[in-house]
Amino acid sequence: METEQDTYPPAAPPGDLTTAVTAPGAELLTLLDRHLPRIRAEAAPNDQDGTFPAETFRGFARDGVLGATVPAELGGMGVSRLHDVAAALLRVAEADASTALALHAQFSRGITLTYEWLHGPPPTRKLAEELLRAMARGEAVIGGAVKDYGREVTRLRPDGSGGWLLSGRKTLVTMAPIATHFVVSAQAPAAGGTTLLYAPIVARDTPGLSIVDGWTGLGMRASGTLDVAFDDCPVPAGNLLARGSVGVHSDAVLAGQAVSSVAMLGIYVGVAQAARDLAVDTLARRSATPPAASRTLVAETEARLYALRATASAALVNVDELSPRHDMDPDERGRRMMTPFQCAKAMVNQLAAEVVDDCLTVVGGATYAAEHPLARLYRDVRAGRFMQPYTYADGVDYLSAQALGLERDNNYVSLRATRPADGQLSDRGIRLPAHGS
Amino acid sequence: METEQDTYPPAAPPGDLTTAVTAPGAELLTLLDRHLPRIRAEAAPNDQDGTFPAETFRGFARDGVLGATVPAELGGMGVSRLHDVAAALLRVAEADASTALALHAQFSRGITLTYEWLHGPPPTRKLAEELLRAMARGEAVIGGAVKDYGREVTRLRPDGSGGWLLSGRKTLVTMAPIATHFVVSAQAPAAGGTTLLYAPIVARDTPGLSIVDGWTGLGMRASGTLDVAFDDCPVPAGNLLARGSVGVHSDAVLAGQAVSSVAMLGIYVGVAQAARDLAVDTLARRSATPPAASRTLVAETEARLYALRATASAALVNVDELSPRHDMDPDERGRRMMTPFQCAKAMVNQLAAEVVDDCLTVVGGATYAAEHPLARLYRDVRAGRFMQPYTYADGVDYLSAQALGLERDNNYVSLRATRPADGQLSDRGIRLPAHGS
Amino acid sequence: METEQDTYPPAAPPGDLTTAVTAPGAELLTLLDRHLPRIRAEAAPNDQDGTFPAETFRGFARDGVLGATVPAELGGMGVSRLHDVAAALLRVAEADASTALALHAQFSRGITLTYEWLHGPPPTRKLAEELLRAMARGEAVIGGAVKDYGREVTRLRPDGSGGWLLSGRKTLVTMAPIATHFVVSAQAPAAGGTTLLYAPIVARDTPGLSIVDGWTGLGMRASGTLDVAFDDCPVPAGNLLARGSVGVHSDAVLAGQAVSSVAMLGIYVGVAQAARDLAVDTLARRSATPPAASRTLVAETEARLYALRATASAALVNVDELSPRHDMDPDERGRRMMTPFQCAKAMVNQLAAEVVDDCLTVVGGATYAAEHPLARLYRDVRAGRFMQPYTYADGVDYLSAQALGLERDNNYVSLRATRPADGQLSDRGIRLPAHGS
Amino acid sequence: METEQDTYPPAAPPGDLTTAVTAPGAELLTLLDRHLPRIRAEAAPNDQDGTFPAETFRGFARDGVLGATVPAELGGMGVSRLHDVAAALLRVAEADASTALALHAQFSRGITLTYEWLHGPPPTRKLAEELLRAMARGEAVIGGAVKDYGREVTRLRPDGSGGWLLSGRKTLVTMAPIATHFVVSAQAPAAGGTTLLYAPIVARDTPGLSIVDGWTGLGMRASGTLDVAFDDCPVPAGNLLARGSVGVHSDAVLAGQAVSSVAMLGIYVGVAQAARDLAVDTLARRSATPPAASRTLVAETEARLYALRATASAALVNVDELSPRHDMDPDERGRRMMTPFQCAKAMVNQLAAEVVDDCLTVVGGATYAAEHPLARLYRDVRAGRFMQPYTYADGVDYLSAQALGLERDNNYVSLRATRPADGQLSDRGIRLPAHGS
Repeated sequence: METEQDTYPPAAPPGDLTTAVTAPGAELLTLLDRHLPRIRAEAAPNDQDGTFPAETFRGFARDGVLGATVPAELGGMGVSRLHDVAAALLRVAEADASTALALHAQFSRGITLTYEWLHGPPPTRKLAEELLRAMARGEAVIGGAVKDYGREVTRLRPDGSGGWLLSGRKTLVTMAPIATHFVVSAQAPAAGGTTLLYAPIVARDTPGLSIVDGWTGLGMRASGTLDVAFDDCPVPAGNLLARGSVGVHSDAVLAGQAVSSVAMLGIYVGVAQAARDLAVDTLARRSATPPAASRTLVAETEARLYALRATASAALVNVDELSPRHDMDPDERGRRMMTPFQCAKAMVNQLAAEVVDDCLTVVGGATYAAEHPLARLYRDVRAGRFMQPYTYADGVDYLSAQALGLERDNNYVSLRATRPADGQLSDRGIRLPAHGS
Repeated sequence: METEQDTYPPAAPPGDLTTAVTAPGAELLTLLDRHLPRIRAEAAPNDQDGTFPAETFRGFARDGVLGATVPAELGGMGVSRLHDVAAALLRVAEADASTALALHAQFSRGITLTYEWLHGPPPTRKLAEELLRAMARGEAVIGGAVKDYGREVTRLRPDGSGGWLLSGRKTLVTMAPIATHFVVSAQAPAAGGTTLLYAPIVARDTPGLSIVDGWTGLGMRASGTLDVAFDDCPVPAGNLLARGSVGVHSDAVLAGQAVSSVAMLGIYVGVAQAARDLAVDTLARRSATPPAASRTLVAETEARLYALRATASAALVNVDELSPRHDMDPDERGRRMMTPFQCAKAMVNQLAAEVVDDCLTVVGGATYAAEHPLARLYRDVRAGRFMQPYTYADGVDYLSAQALGLERDNNYVSLRATRPADGQLSDRGIRLPAHGS
Repeated sequence: METEQDTYPPAAPPGDLTTAVTAPGAELLTLLDRHLPRIRAEAAPNDQDGTFPAETFRGFARDGVLGATVPAELGGMGVSRLHDVAAALLRVAEADASTALALHAQFSRGITLTYEWLHGPPPTRKLAEELLRAMARGEAVIGGAVKDYGREVTRLRPDGSGGWLLSGRKTLVTMAPIATHFVVSAQAPAAGGTTLLYAPIVARDTPGLSIVDGWTGLGMRASGTLDVAFDDCPVPAGNLLARGSVGVHSDAVLAGQAVSSVAMLGIYVGVAQAARDLAVDTLARRSATPPAASRTLVAETEARLYALRATASAALVNVDELSPRHDMDPDERGRRMMTPFQCAKAMVNQLAAEVVDDCLTVVGGATYAAEHPLARLYRDVRAGRFMQPYTYADGVDYLSAQALGLERDNNYVSLRATRPADGQLSDRGIRLPAHGS
Repeated sequence: METEQDTYPPAAPPGDLTTAVTAPGAELLTLLDRHLPRIRAEAAPNDQDGTFPAETFRGFARDGVLGATVPAELGGMGVSRLHDVAAALLRVAEADASTALALHAQFSRGITLTYEWLHGPPPTRKLAEELLRAMARGEAVIGGAVKDYGREVTRLRPDGSGGWLLSGRKTLVTMAPIATHFVVSAQAPAAGGTTLLYAPIVARDTPGLSIVDGWTGLGMRASGTLDVAFDDCPVPAGNLLARGSVGVHSDAVLAGQAVSSVAMLGIYVGVAQAARDLAVDTLARRSATPPAASRTLVAETEARLYALRATASAALVNVDELSPRHDMDPDERGRRMMTPFQCAKAMVNQLAAEVVDDCLTVVGGATYAAEHPLARLYRDVRAGRFMQPYTYADGVDYLSAQALGLERDNNYVSLRATRPADGQLSDRGIRLPAHGS
């Protein structure tokens, strides 16, 4: 997929996330600029009501944004560098983080399905190609459904005729209101007591699938984050992506997990950038001399934001460089993609939250109104710590194990499958018909 | 007002804010315990809808809680130590911070009106006595209206017959839905170009007064925080408390400002305590071994919470000890009350926010739902930095000026009157009839 | 030992560590003031050469300072509150932290031997009385020798005639150059595979005892910290204090461990106070307007220092209050003394180091000279984290176990005895004759 | 100076400072590897005694390291990218920060003299060429003498025959024991009350020049940091580099100031890397399971170190990219080089110090011995905050002024010339004959 255009343009400063490093990436940024005024204008009301920006996504479908990460051969824009995906998400997140979070789901699916199309077994390649072409046409919108709801476990069982039946419930599924398909994390018992992990791809109109409303977030409220329930949904064998087995300690899977999620760093850099711009603009417009504390906080903000961009950018390019390295040991490759991502994630989560917090302090009590943009950013930025992989606790275990040479299962999907559930959520959701939203 | 009972009971551990140091304080805690189940139960729905806990306050009126800080001679409970006021607010804030914030307004008014009753000029004494007696009967609810709305300046002008007319608009007035009176910060021009500062006490049914709805907060959403507008409201001369002049650099006023606000420290300690209890309970109930990061965060939380309590407690007792010291130079007394308060406020704002943030991390993604109690605490705790006196920026200027011997106007009301307005709020509120809420 | 004078004087502000809460404590402060000029003057040269302030300690002996914590009945000054011990150490540490650290060893021994004198078995009482009387006369100087050197284990074995022989090597023994006795942590095998813990008291001129020179510290260089080696030193049975058994999980011992060490908090508050005073004085003397960053750092320093004092003070008074509570369950008492101490220690170690660091930044490059007092404080303050009980890692384990209800051995001496040694030190010391220093 | 080899090798991961981005840079790293064992071995004793590693620098001279940044055309190694200079300094600093700091002076001089050789006026070009050729031969060692001693001002006055006489005293001159020349910051009065700034280059054997011993540092003790005094030293007109005028607010000079100093970021990243390696190695060798706190600190350290490298690397490449951009507005170019440097410097100073501090905590009390490598790193890392440009306070003023559009003099040499002196140092140095060391 490397083309002549796919090179570093001279204008791209290193450590920067505001410009793209490939031509398709730059084209995506230009395309998104057309949508920013609407995204910016809708951010506050959508946050207030928890409304998904459906009209914006219809525009994304029309303009090909939903196929941004689909290869050009399949009709997409051909953005293949995660750096550029993150730069695009950063720009959207400056206007509205929720929109960026939902869009990330689609971008991420384009990247991972392209990998399946290039490297998967033949039936998967065919499925991936169909989906990618539909994404490029703006017809397929593919959400990820990873986290099990409460103590439930999402399971596949054979339907007796070569296919599978999927049951369970997933929570925190972003972009759910418009998703046409879901890539679901599920497990299936296998011979010898092993538990296999799969990612079945399930169309929204599959019998037994229902969208469950009820979640409203502290932040990221317009991201269309809902629950999806499966009640013996039929899944053809060809729609199953293999994802290893529980408890096997394979680090090869870390590559795909890093690739799926690392571009989200751009979202939190965008949130911090938006907070900084609001604070600096407000302070600069005031007629009074800025007080000592504000100058100190502004300077610290500038430094942190620079570090945020540089650190996220480095992790993205690290992942981009290792992504095509199929010559390497796959476990080693997985770790070498995950480690920089986790280092950057830890710092981004900390520094972006500090930036937003200091910006509230600089602007003052006016930010404590629910509708103030900084109040929204204060709630949105907190999502970062909860994004997988990993949670903060798992990130500490992973990074310290890597440094100290300790053995552990680094696959968070497998790890979860072996952990006692926390049962932190009681069932308060309301089942909606799948097409009702 | 010191009585035999008014001594340190042996059970009160130093550095503690969970028990009272006087008998009336202990009685107040007992009384409040009866209200906690309702307060706790209503915290989530009131936060969601921004509803003021009117029924709880009716209960407070019935039980004498609204007269807690009124002297026993005037029918009140006679809680006179700010330490005990803060302990009471802490306990309420553990159940609901908004309720505590609203209640603080009434407690604070009881303390300052008692001071006027004891030390004010004769007409003020009379007014104070009437109000205090009405507070003790649960009939007077007295809000404070300090912060001007946008660029407006709240002003008094002579009515030509010995009284005054008040005009302007105040924002962030807590407990406004049920307040029967407001103590308003206002200025009036005087001979020789001076601007005098006053605190007129205005009854809610005064002609020209209207309650302006429209504010919804990032947090503290059930605290009944609204705007109050004044349009040539008549104020009898006897209802004016003198508050010095603009630009005079009198530090004597710091005493009253410290006394009015220092007990709010208890609210933020209560918020942190509630967050800690939720996190520790959740983690302790999980069957899995706590991960390394969670143990580290829990230990840091324990240490910070201890420091929070000790620091807030020390500042409260410092203010309590200096409060009756009328033998001292009044400027010196003002500074010696304000400085510990500001030190404690800076630490409480920082440490309480860190505790809440770490507790979200320990509990995990479940806290990112709007209705999770930790999500509410994350929004509530952020109010601390914006409470007067001082903002963070003014706190830095004050504390560094004290340390370095720099001259400045430490009266934030006066300072504001001389500062160019920031104009951060456009008029989006809707005027409501004064009795409509 | 409570006397009429032993009450809170009205002048002692709460949360304060600069004044004493008992009359003997106040007397000690006055006595120490006479020594401060010399201590202050010698701080820099003694730090540079690693010289113990022997002349200062001769003065302490002469004036009764070495018997400050010996009961008045035995000829001492009768300082019994740890708050006042810490206040005294704070004052000395402002002049020189090393001197305070060495003096703490003697003060701590007075407190714990007084406990033995009051509550120990008859032979121990007799020994304690003799030592306490000698301390009061300035003739006994009693160091503590807790930490084993490298992988060595200090052990007692029966001498066959009712006494014991002690062998091993202790490191980081403070005040060693002038100590006349050492209280040593040692273990002895007992019937049934148990290992008993003892604290033998060994006179310096005991055959087989040698002082091993060689340690020079990053900081606290004038504290007379050396190694002490024991080669079959005879110890009479009456000189053995019982300290429980390895692995028994008895929390009763935490009381003694807290009492022995909690007053050291005063040292680090003193270090922070000295740093603050240097920075503020330097900045205030400069003719230029203080820059924004300096004002912010000074304000943060004021707030942290206030929190340091309040937090340390609260922990000290907590321990003082529980110390005489022999009615309580001894395990519960142990934990309730240790927990506040550990919370305060974690905060003091963090905040004091931040204060010193910011003070270097405020004063600037001049502080980076070896002989600058802030350079010394930067090195001295770092000792806090390493003081027992506990190390930072053990403190995290302790506090999180307490919060989460996890079982562990909280006795660090026992814990160490069961842990694989780290072997972090190779033998580079040089044996000196015991009387050579 | 761009050659075919001067391109990014495929192996250089982005955000990395451990490999070079040009062939000459890679060659320098290889060359330095030969010297690392000696540097590592001498680090502890040189730190202890404050001895300059003269033998190492003789080796550097022999191998061409002292001409690393001299263009190949003039006999040097041709390392022209500051990224690669920083990577070299990082590697040396991992072994010994003092050696790296001294070496930086020579590397920096090579870069700036190359600029003079290419872009300076004809007489300067000639001088620069001679010096560069001598550096390449290992014969010229050129120190920088910027900071005035105490209240002294280093001044040039005309000698009446077209040359100049230099008088004053400079402090904190690194690499002084072996320097053959000094580039000195000096001022000279000019017509119309202007004060011009110059950088005269003065040979060590110039009459009137003396090396003043006396400084011993908190850290960086083997960096050969001394004072240099000038007493009417004759300076030929051709040896003067023009550096603008006092108070002119020219930002063009920021380019040279950034180029001279930005590579020092590598030193502090190296210090942090060395601390991390020591801590991780020590912990990994212990047989016990790492405690929760250590795992958390190790994970935080990994994340911070990644951010350190990425942030420093981004700033270095930013400066490298703008360095040849003579088409830009020179003020704009100056600011765009200085801003990323200052952002990175603020973060590096904070994060590197945190890494070192946490590593001491992880390893424990053994690090508190003066000779422990972590104790040295704890002292060395603190130098970062004091390195120009800028001090922390000036950095806050600069970054906040840039963000808020405030006018100020960003040239720290000019700024100093207009500031009242702090007079923080009294004269305690001892004059040595210039050739005596």
